[in-house]
Amino acid sequence: ASEIQHSKTSASSIDLSDPDWKLKYEKDFEQRFSIPHITDVLPDAEAIRSTFCLKMRSPTEDFVGGYPSDEEWHGYINNNDRVLLKVISYSSPTSAGAECLDHDCSWVEQWIHRAGPREKIYFRPEEVKAAIITCGGLCPGLNDVIRHIVITLEIYGVKNIVGIPFGYRGFSDKDLTEMPLSRKVVQNIHLSGGSLLGVSRGGPSVSEIVDSMEERGINMLFVLGGNGTHAGANAIHNECRKRKIKVAVVGVPKTIDNDILHMDKTFGFDTAVEEAQRAINSAYIEAHSAYHGIGVVKLMGRNSGFIAMQASLASGQVDICLIPEVPFNLHGPNGVLKHLKYLIETKGSAVICVAEGAGQNFLEKTNAKDASGNAVLGDFGVYIQQETKKYFKEISTPIDVKYIDPTYMIRAVRANASDGILCTVLGQNAVHGAFAGYSGITVGIINTHYAYLPITEVIAYPKSVDPNSRMWHRCLTSTGQPDFI
Amino acid sequence: ASEIQHSKTSASSIDLSDPDWKLKYEKDFEQRFSIPHITDVLPDAEAIRSTFCLKMRSPTEDFVGGYPSDEEWHGYINNNDRVLLKVISYSSPTSAGAECLDHDCSWVEQWIHRAGPREKIYFRPEEVKAAIITCGGLCPGLNDVIRHIVITLEIYGVKNIVGIPFGYRGFSDKDLTEMPLSRKVVQNIHLSGGSLLGVSRGGPSVSEIVDSMEERGINMLFVLGGNGTHAGANAIHNECRKRKIKVAVVGVPKTIDNDILHMDKTFGFDTAVEEAQRAINSAYIEAHSAYHGIGVVKLMGRNSGFIAMQASLASGQVDICLIPEVPFNLHGPNGVLKHLKYLIETKGSAVICVAEGAGQNFLEKTNAKDASGNAVLGDFGVYIQQETKKYFKEISTPIDVKYIDPTYMIRAVRANASDGILCTVLGQNAVHGAFAGYSGITVGIINTHYAYLPITEVIAYPKSVDPNSRMWHRCLTSTGQPDFI
Amino acid sequence: ASEIQHSKTSASSIDLSDPDWKLKYEKDFEQRFSIPHITDVLPDAEAIRSTFCLKMRSPTEDFVGGYPSDEEWHGYINNNDRVLLKVISYSSPTSAGAECLDHDCSWVEQWIHRAGPREKIYFRPEEVKAAIITCGGLCPGLNDVIRHIVITLEIYGVKNIVGIPFGYRGFSDKDLTEMPLSRKVVQNIHLSGGSLLGVSRGGPSVSEIVDSMEERGINMLFVLGGNGTHAGANAIHNECRKRKIKVAVVGVPKTIDNDILHMDKTFGFDTAVEEAQRAINSAYIEAHSAYHGIGVVKLMGRNSGFIAMQASLASGQVDICLIPEVPFNLHGPNGVLKHLKYLIETKGSAVICVAEGAGQNFLEKTNAKDASGNAVLGDFGVYIQQETKKYFKEISTPIDVKYIDPTYMIRAVRANASDGILCTVLGQNAVHGAFAGYSGITVGIINTHYAYLPITEVIAYPKSVDPNSRMWHRCLTSTGQPDFI
Amino acid sequence: ASEIQHSKTSASSIDLSDPDWKLKYEKDFEQRFSIPHITDVLPDAEAIRSTFCLKMRSPTEDFVGGYPSDEEWHGYINNNDRVLLKVISYSSPTSAGAECLDHDCSWVEQWIHRAGPREKIYFRPEEVKAAIITCGGLCPGLNDVIRHIVITLEIYGVKNIVGIPFGYRGFSDKDLTEMPLSRKVVQNIHLSGGSLLGVSRGGPSVSEIVDSMEERGINMLFVLGGNGTHAGANAIHNECRKRKIKVAVVGVPKTIDNDILHMDKTFGFDTAVEEAQRAINSAYIEAHSAYHGIGVVKLMGRNSGFIAMQASLASGQVDICLIPEVPFNLHGPNGVLKHLKYLIETKGSAVICVAEGAGQNFLEKTNAKDASGNAVLGDFGVYIQQETKKYFKEISTPIDVKYIDPTYMIRAVRANASDGILCTVLGQNAVHGAFAGYSGITVGIINTHYAYLPITEVIAYPKSVDPNSRMWHRCLTSTGQPDFI
Repeated sequence: ASEIQHSKTSASSIDLSDPDWKLKYEKDFEQRFSIPHITDVLPDAEAIRSTFCLKMRSPTEDFVGGYPSDEEWHGYINNNDRVLLKVISYSSPTSAGAECLDHDCSWVEQWIHRAGPREKIYFRPEEVKAAIITCGGLCPGLNDVIRHIVITLEIYGVKNIVGIPFGYRGFSDKDLTEMPLSRKVVQNIHLSGGSLLGVSRGGPSVSEIVDSMEERGINMLFVLGGNGTHAGANAIHNECRKRKIKVAVVGVPKTIDNDILHMDKTFGFDTAVEEAQRAINSAYIEAHSAYHGIGVVKLMGRNSGFIAMQASLASGQVDICLIPEVPFNLHGPNGVLKHLKYLIETKGSAVICVAEGAGQNFLEKTNAKDASGNAVLGDFGVYIQQETKKYFKEISTPIDVKYIDPTYMIRAVRANASDGILCTVLGQNAVHGAFAGYSGITVGIINTHYAYLPITEVIAYPKSVDPNSRMWHRCLTSTGQPDFI
Repeated sequence: ASEIQHSKTSASSIDLSDPDWKLKYEKDFEQRFSIPHITDVLPDAEAIRSTFCLKMRSPTEDFVGGYPSDEEWHGYINNNDRVLLKVISYSSPTSAGAECLDHDCSWVEQWIHRAGPREKIYFRPEEVKAAIITCGGLCPGLNDVIRHIVITLEIYGVKNIVGIPFGYRGFSDKDLTEMPLSRKVVQNIHLSGGSLLGVSRGGPSVSEIVDSMEERGINMLFVLGGNGTHAGANAIHNECRKRKIKVAVVGVPKTIDNDILHMDKTFGFDTAVEEAQRAINSAYIEAHSAYHGIGVVKLMGRNSGFIAMQASLASGQVDICLIPEVPFNLHGPNGVLKHLKYLIETKGSAVICVAEGAGQNFLEKTNAKDASGNAVLGDFGVYIQQETKKYFKEISTPIDVKYIDPTYMIRAVRANASDGILCTVLGQNAVHGAFAGYSGITVGIINTHYAYLPITEVIAYPKSVDPNSRMWHRCLTSTGQPDFI
Repeated sequence: ASEIQHSKTSASSIDLSDPDWKLKYEKDFEQRFSIPHITDVLPDAEAIRSTFCLKMRSPTEDFVGGYPSDEEWHGYINNNDRVLLKVISYSSPTSAGAECLDHDCSWVEQWIHRAGPREKIYFRPEEVKAAIITCGGLCPGLNDVIRHIVITLEIYGVKNIVGIPFGYRGFSDKDLTEMPLSRKVVQNIHLSGGSLLGVSRGGPSVSEIVDSMEERGINMLFVLGGNGTHAGANAIHNECRKRKIKVAVVGVPKTIDNDILHMDKTFGFDTAVEEAQRAINSAYIEAHSAYHGIGVVKLMGRNSGFIAMQASLASGQVDICLIPEVPFNLHGPNGVLKHLKYLIETKGSAVICVAEGAGQNFLEKTNAKDASGNAVLGDFGVYIQQETKKYFKEISTPIDVKYIDPTYMIRAVRANASDGILCTVLGQNAVHGAFAGYSGITVGIINTHYAYLPITEVIAYPKSVDPNSRMWHRCLTSTGQPDFI
Repeated sequence: ASEIQHSKTSASSIDLSDPDWKLKYEKDFEQRFSIPHITDVLPDAEAIRSTFCLKMRSPTEDFVGGYPSDEEWHGYINNNDRVLLKVISYSSPTSAGAECLDHDCSWVEQWIHRAGPREKIYFRPEEVKAAIITCGGLCPGLNDVIRHIVITLEIYGVKNIVGIPFGYRGFSDKDLTEMPLSRKVVQNIHLSGGSLLGVSRGGPSVSEIVDSMEERGINMLFVLGGNGTHAGANAIHNECRKRKIKVAVVGVPKTIDNDILHMDKTFGFDTAVEEAQRAINSAYIEAHSAYHGIGVVKLMGRNSGFIAMQASLASGQVDICLIPEVPFNLHGPNGVLKHLKYLIETKGSAVICVAEGAGQNFLEKTNAKDASGNAVLGDFGVYIQQETKKYFKEISTPIDVKYIDPTYMIRAVRANASDGILCTVLGQNAVHGAFAGYSGITVGIINTHYAYLPITEVIAYPKSVDPNSRMWHRCLTSTGQPDFI
């Protein structure tokens, strides 16, 4: 489950003196994590038997057209199935990584909706026109998700599937035309990185988008993007509700930084950590072969240090890992540079792994923004490199600093096997959710099971590494670094 | 969580008519999953403050020897912290993958012990002689686990660490001497596959082993191996109890097949699935470039199909996946070969992925055994290849069958990044468990959290793929294959 | 240059007593390696200025159609440029790898035709219909060659390019239609292995093929295949000559075994040696981690040991390399098994790398043939594994044999970078050769330069490793193995 | 062979009017490429039968110590064997890539010394103390060369082998001690990148080095480094000559930029081009997935564009390749930016690959030097990125520039298979050369054969890409880029 103090918001609003505060909390939780359904605004939306039937016969001659399921099959998810969000019972607030609502950390049941195919579907396949868009920065696995959305739609019997090129801009930009998608078109797209549909940041207003969707007759929209993109998707969902048009809007969270609330991880993260090993290993080899060599690797992670933390843990070659969530001094008795001096004297070489968002406090603020509204960060990698050279020059110890910034090389690659599986299931479940009539939802993996969450709950604030979490402590054990405060 | 009908055994023994059957079940569960502790037999075993202190300062001149923790630190796990084994509430027995104790699948709390460092330790580091052994077949990550057991032991202050060469045989074989281990020795062993200590199957009797341990003064034994090896470890644990000697025996489950009960996955499995992609992709390319090409890939998986299932899902290039748990016919109207004919006629080529243990019912039984007591399997890969050639010859359709069996190429490789992290944490937690005085336990990842389980509960029977599980259904959706019964 | 005793044929036919035997030999050589040209049978075939002009301007508005070269350009090859086939002067017959015509190995000039674009071309681009076919087993780089043939044809101005599916069979098989090719179609095909056009063995008669070519109006045929395929191409070339039709037939040698005469290497060989490292490294890890472990790897190489030799050299982990060209005993005082015993006693483990064609003398002959007429080989890998187990059982020394046969995994992959470059230039030069009016030729890399050779000279007999060559001696130095005779 | 106008120097100094100018040129060439030998200054240096004998028997019991060769063996190279440096006869100065001495490009024989084991050796193995040093920047394969120098020395019977840490600095730096080397120590070092011995730039004076060598009793010195390092090695060689001490100094050229005269390629270059593909492929994916995406990749290549050229050729995804040797304009009618606009309008995206040394004329000179005396370059990659953004802003066309600079990731990696073989043979031949009594030589691969060259001839000036060479023209054909002048 996630690494963050989820209870931050709700804890404050609970009146612990109330004897049945637990029941009230569980009620409130259930309400917040309930997932919007078409019938909320279109109560008489028609439900029919699902055309998604797994127990297919390979088509004998007379059924060449399709595969009717001709027997009882326990393949559907019941709408009341639930998955637990929190699965640890902390016996005291001092337990490592404890997340407690009350003083004795009593266990509270926080159930969220289980993902998967439902028996009843709210769209006739032949009436569906499904659209897929990919927004924001690239991420390994985008093509895998697109591919399985298309394959699963075809299994339901949908023939009319299109890709909207270059994110939300595709709705308004005149010279961008819809790209017809089918199993044949997407057959091998997962063998290369990037997005078949192209990505971009920003885009037209919500009403322009919904106007365009109505013109195009789109009634299923699958949105692959980060927090900003999901906010857009939710606004589209609400606009369709306001207009009482039967549209399912389903998000699939895409962020290389893994900073989406509640989820074990987001697709592409495993691949990014794998690719980051090449940069760390090269920095280790350069540092280890140089006289007093110091390797510095800067990895993606705007305001969360998950990639830097996991990549350091996986490599076993990192001596110092610096992430945005954990403050540190460079200079002074407990500073990073002092420990670096100790490492050079004892081991002869060292490797530092920093998240791009770390140490911003050392750099002048630039209030420049990129097209998605992300603050443009100062380059901490270059900064720590210069500070290190100055420091060792002052104490006249010769060192050799090698700086590696793989930038896009860790995200513009094809997904590895474990991300391939994650994307396959996310793509399948996104389609199951839309056909089941849910909208304004996003799909994620929680405690190894797949769930639907209301977009609002997921984009409350970006997830960040909990400095008291077990994972950060394990990283400290592996690097052997002290606190730099 | 696991993919199996855990409740198989306990369900039968519950008297559902008893109104507090749920309370009784939870009590019985808690009892079964309680973890043996040294104080069970040595009640006056001395507990001291843990020497594992994370908040280290880089040693100022006067503390060059060690790092005393000088402040309050929420880094320890409380012995009463628990992790939930089951996290899905199925609202009906017909829900996909439902595991129910009673008819309305009421939710039951099944808590297991959380892994991690404890405040109290039962061994003085300077009195510890720790030994590590690796048994059975190779698995990616063995060196990563060895490495982090050694690093974590050194952080506790242990100086006397040895490797017993070639598994249990190392205890009795005269010309095999102990291998002294230290951080320096293990610094880069995780960069290559295999086991630094060497592996073998079988070994001397339990009493011979414990005699040898007493001679060598070993009081912490870390055993990396599969179900059989864990049975041995548990017998050693019980023998030490009988002799009332203060020894902690801790297992780390190692099986490329991922067939260990309760656990999300075992280390090395992700890497094996990743490496299997090369075999599947080559089979796809051969099949796709040949006239009526059929690629056949045989992967490891003696009696469980996890590698074949996950590798097929990840590749997106497999048309037919055959695993031991799901019966199938080759011939007949619903047979595999009929579907293969359909694929050749429509797509022109096909890829079949089989687990080595699949289709044994088609082959004559050989009651030969390997040194670990595993039945020697008939070669189903070669069998299906011959049957396919015969079938298409009879219907005079020219085909070109290409057979790939990567055998050891998927396990004799270094661990990938995600396995590297899993091994790091398993190694750290194995040492935390031993120092906390637990013995006869094994460490595993359950719902993304790490837990200690009594060995007995883990080796009850090998985990296998549940044909009604969501994961198998997702695999069927991805391959598009029908039931072959 | 090649590793073989090229002089085998010609040496016998030289009368060394004749004082100007050298001049006569050089004359004869020049005659044999002269390359057939269209004008040999169509003396008044029209030559025009080449439309291949490199010094293009990016098209200003008015030249959007094409890129006229508007200046003097030294980019063409002169028809009289020559490349030397033999570049070593051996000062005595006892020099390592010496290839001598006479007793004192006097240096003889053996010039062959240099490949590349000519100033005069014999086809008007708009009248060209070019066809490409790929025959025989797969090889990394097939798609790279196809891609650059298409790109270079388009630069010349050719619009009508087709792929004939599944090799020569594509000419006769009714339900196989031509595949239109363009830069757009081939843009990314080099990113995946196999052949876009599909491969097969055998095919219809020569006259049927040429009939079909005339029907289809094909006047340029590019044939990618091994020795057998090149014999076919040469027969097509001669048939077109007989029919006095203006057709250019150009071959590009494709063989994973690298057994094509005269050439430094064939495309795909580097990639196969690279991929073979995975199998050898896994065998090394298995052997090194087992008690008395012996790793056995079988690699492709029907009657030449180039892959086994180069892969052993590259890995540095092979103790014994067995190739078809070098006889060896298994048993007896100088046998392989005796040396294996020595290795187990001194190093504790060993790795053997065998070419599939090695040790056929130990196996019963099967006169089965595959569709290309290649003899079906006995499985020497399995044989040496059984013999090894028997041998060590008799001397009651426990060993653990691990056998790896990567089969298609070393050829059904995309080309690596160095093969990518080789294929790029081979593809470009094949088109330059056809446009220059040559036919019945094949293109290859000789002493790092590209040359055109008459197909007859290249398919005289398959190249094999020269046991006295420097490369085999270097391999022996690296493995440290003795002679097994 | 090399890509450069080798004849630049010698051509001018030839008096073409002299009828036997060719004989005189060949005489002068032979003299310049003769290789210094110990007997030049120590005429009575003793020659003994070589102890390097390949045809070993696996030691029967009584010869366990060594392997006496007991039969006639054609394994030695004769001192008079020669390899041709130039192998193309250009029939006119206008032929592509023509290198002519006189007007009609008459063919001239330029023979250089063939590398390999000699029958006579000038050192008794038991009297040899061999030292290895690695200088300058890292390069894939350094460990492979070190490994095979050690293995081959041991086969000769040398027991006393040391590594001098951190390049020439290791001779003078007091707290750096010699590292004893043996087959056991180097057994697996080739499995990881970097240098076992460590590298550094600069170092003490020549006489200090030779003093230190005499103190240490080193009589064989193997120097792995670039042009600067080879100049140092040659100075050491000459100093030993002056002091009449019997020392063999042999260089092995190490440069990631492949800018060493005469040689086909230097070790590590293939691996660097392979690794560069990851950066180019990521830039292609980013550019291809973005709206008007432009990928910019900066690769190593201080003053030669070999890596950028070969990496562009291999990838097939580069539209514009900019190297130091070929001048170009950014702005103006034929500028790079104009072509970029054309590519964006027609293909929608583009990839530019630049060598770090390209376009320095656009940047202010900084006369800063690194420790090896290399000029510190302005960052052209950042410059072209900014210019591109400005240009498209002015013509108000939205573009998305993605910049990737893999820096050390292409050199701090282990060698691939083809480099592994090159390093194996270079290491073996370096030892053969030293034992044969040669000194002041370097070993390289020329027209696929291995040769010894006098250091002076190799370090005359750095090799650079010949803009008229076939290879650059092939690169232009593959990218489709025009001249930017």
